[in-house]
Order: sequence, then C-alpha cells, then structure tokens
Amino acid sequence: MYVYSSKVVWAGGRRGKLTCGNGFRALFSPPPEFQGEAGTLTAEDAFVASVNMSFTLTFLKLAEQEKLDLRAFECNCNGIMDRVMPRMAFKRIVLHPRVMVASDADVPAVERCMDLADKYAVVRNSVKPKVVLEYKIELDKKRAAAAKAEMAE
Amino acid sequence: MYVYSSKVVWAGGRRGKLTCGNGFRALFSPPPEFQGEAGTLTAEDAFVASVNMSFTLTFLKLAEQEKLDLRAFECNCNGIMDRVMPRMAFKRIVLHPRVMVASDADVPAVERCMDLADKYAVVRNSVKPKVVLEYKIELDKKRAAAAKAEMAE
Repeated sequence: MYVYSSKVVWAGGRRGKLTCGNGFRALFSPPPEFQGEAGTLTAEDAFVASVNMSFTLTFLKLAEQEKLDLRAFECNCNGIMDRVMPRMAFKRIVLHPRVMVASDADVPAVERCMDLADKYAVVRNSVKPKVVLEYKIELDKKRAAAAKAEMAE
Repeated sequence: MYVYSSKVVWAGGRRGKLTCGNGFRALFSPPPEFQGEAGTLTAEDAFVASVNMSFTLTFLKLAEQEKLDLRAFECNCNGIMDRVMPRMAFKRIVLHPRVMVASDADVPAVERCMDLADKYAVVRNSVKPKVVLEYKIELDKKRAAAAKAEMAE
C-alpha cells in the first residue's frame, strides 16, 4: 500500500499553493476560461496530465525491461470534460503516444509495451472516463540507414 | 464541452517534461520509492492533487457566491494506492479541508458549500476511488472577540 499526499493553501481570490509529498510545489488556479491565470497548474490539467505521465512512465519502464533502443518518445493527451448527467465530469481521455525506434525489428516489442502500459498504468486504472490509446511507431531513418550501410560493408 | 490537453516528452531515463494547454510546465519522474527524483511532479501526486485542487476551487467559488467571509482555507489530501484486483490502482482518497470563518453564524453556509463542492467538483466526479470528506470549521477568535467588543460598546 502506498499513500500520496498533497496540501493546498488558499492564497486569496481563486488561487492557491500546492505542495506534494515529494516536495513538488506549484501555484494553481482555475483554467483561463473559468477566470484562472495562464501558466499556473489547474485541477483539470493535473488530472489529464496524471493519466499521460502514468502511461508514459509505465511504457518507459516496460521498454527498459525489454531492452528496447528507443530514440524518442512523446505523448499528447486530450481530456474531454462534459455533462455526465446530472453533473460535469471527464467523459473521455485520448492518449496519442509517438515513439521512434532504431529498427523495424523493435516494432512488435513496442506494440507489446503499449498494450501492457495501457493495461497496467496505475492512474489510467483509477479514472472513470474511457481511455483511448492511439499510438504511432516511427523508424529513426538516419539510424536505420547507417545500420543498413554497416551490414553492406 | 471543454478539452484539456497536455504533452509529455521523454527526457531520457525515467523522466520527462510536461507542458499543459494553459502554459504550465514541469519536470516529472516516478515517485522517490520507484526510483524517481524528489521535487519533480509525479503522476501519482498529480492525480491526488487534481482531486484536492478541484474540490478546493469549487468550494472557494461557492463560498464567494454565498459572500462568505473566509479567513483561511487549506486542504490536506491523501490518496491510497493498493492492489485493486488484478491491478494496482487508487482505492480511496481522503480530503481534510480546514476552513476558518469570522463568525459562528457562517458555519451553516460553510457546511452547505462543503456538501455542494463534494457533490459537484469535476475531478472528484471523474475518479474511480471512493472520495471521503472530513472537514473542520474553525472560528477566527481574534476577529470574533473584536466583533463582540464592538457590539458591547
């Protein structure tokens, strides 16, 4: 069992200070469209980002275990908030990871890691909205060309 | 309908860079007990903090609508992560808000705002774990004493 704690302190108006258990600190306010301040953390962004970061770190851990030679990884994530009768809530979260590998041979292992991360990421398993995974796997062409030339020598 | 977006980019090892739609940026890594770095954002902390911030800002908005004279507000929040068969997930989140008011007369309105925030906070309604609310209402004694003295004059 693990416990994650945070403390928020009201800083006047609609803003506050957040301190997390591991020392992370940030100012927060509502999203800009609800009278918040740009550049601060928001509850909505933190929620969507927590799914994104959880998926990403689970994938990276699995890729490490598989000894995959990843060249790059990034992940865009969109969370859709709407009326879920009778209240507002997040309805759907879509993850768009893009991973770059050095060789075509790595593709099946990347697909396996994607599926496992989608299944085991802790935060992903702790949210109500449907989570959709739409990934892209790209080949590091420079690297692949160099490997090919090496083989031809 | 509202969309909240974030992007994460792998920064090598088990760390990444997060950018949220409103411009907020942070480094993230796993929690310290899973080989992460202290002081960075984590998925687990962001998840628990998102419930905390969502509850807090919903409460503050309701308190503003009720024209409540709040002296202080803070909220500790603990998220318990454990095995939810067959996977790990968050099981329970406990919110401990403490609010300080200027007058005893404000207590019923504070209780009403607590109940409504517990019902309507968007992120709170988007998570699977049970969310428990345990609040404390305190009186700003200095302020209350001053008000009493004023009435006696």
